[in-house]
Amino acid sequence: MYEGPVQALIDELGRLPGVGPKSAQRLAFHLLGVERTDAERLAGAILAAARDVHFCRRCFNVAAAEECRICRDAKRDEAVLCVVAEPRDVQAIEKTGEFRGRYHVLGGLIVPIDGITPDKLHIAELIRRLGEEPVTEVVIALNPTVDGETTASYLRRQLADLDVSVTRIASGLPVGGDLEYADQITLGRAFAGRTSM
Amino acid sequence: MYEGPVQALIDELGRLPGVGPKSAQRLAFHLLGVERTDAERLAGAILAAARDVHFCRRCFNVAAAEECRICRDAKRDEAVLCVVAEPRDVQAIEKTGEFRGRYHVLGGLIVPIDGITPDKLHIAELIRRLGEEPVTEVVIALNPTVDGETTASYLRRQLADLDVSVTRIASGLPVGGDLEYADQITLGRAFAGRTSM
Repeated sequence: MYEGPVQALIDELGRLPGVGPKSAQRLAFHLLGVERTDAERLAGAILAAARDVHFCRRCFNVAAAEECRICRDAKRDEAVLCVVAEPRDVQAIEKTGEFRGRYHVLGGLIVPIDGITPDKLHIAELIRRLGEEPVTEVVIALNPTVDGETTASYLRRQLADLDVSVTRIASGLPVGGDLEYADQITLGRAFAGRTSM
Repeated sequence: MYEGPVQALIDELGRLPGVGPKSAQRLAFHLLGVERTDAERLAGAILAAARDVHFCRRCFNVAAAEECRICRDAKRDEAVLCVVAEPRDVQAIEKTGEFRGRYHVLGGLIVPIDGITPDKLHIAELIRRLGEEPVTEVVIALNPTVDGETTASYLRRQLADLDVSVTRIASGLPVGGDLEYADQITLGRAFAGRTSM
């Protein structure tokens, strides 16, 4: 055991996901070695984020105000709503510059074995939004994994009776990928989703 | 780019060693998702460490007071001084329970190509200590790597004219390995089997 404040720092860093005891020690000694102002800036960023960052009351993206930057942006197309699992998915889609609509962040995927049932996600809020906002298309952009497929199927059933078209982002070969090394399911999807050119 | 405080947190976390942009994002969203008190405890531990942890004025180990716990401990054998590169090496050796003397932390290894010349390390302070304290044996416990060997050779030459026997830990540590990652038994054996140099 190190002396009090050193061990306390190692313990706290070790609670972060993916940070084991050795990494926590390495990070702690890094922080002990940098300028005190650098350590204070990191601590300040953590405190500011804990204090100022909320989830957007409308779409559940991270937000520094009551609503996130995208929900506040009047230039976004309010007819198209993209459903994602996590705020970082919003970020990934924004980077493409291909989407000008708004988002709805579920806060995860349905995984019953982990206790994540539909009522734990922001699905009721999604359905409420569809009744209040002039949305004509819901684009489902969930990971093409078992949990993502489960959640997408559930959403499709929930949205079936509403007056919106439900689409999902294409699954297929990644750009720059190699047909020879693609797995069978991906290649099968790429065939099923072929488009005219 | 995320909204202000989120991006600031990601940027600060990304400055940590071994934390790339994706890891920084993952850690940031973890911190945004935990209880606010948990985030505050981490920030508090960083601030407390930056404020309260110094380097022992005698041995340059990490210390919460002017001198570290080991230097303050009157029961330690002041005749044997163990020279290590980093505070975490002190920790690794303490865990073996094989050593009851005191330490001297160099603060690194001699690596001229990186600008780490002997004057950048606490070598002058080591020689001063040997003049002031009743040390009869100096145990060199540096990594058995090129940099460690270089530093050990330099120390042996510097200490040659002094009235102390110079030993080094030897058997047990695999060549090219890292002292920090050695298991306790191996490191303990290395201590028991130290040889004169």
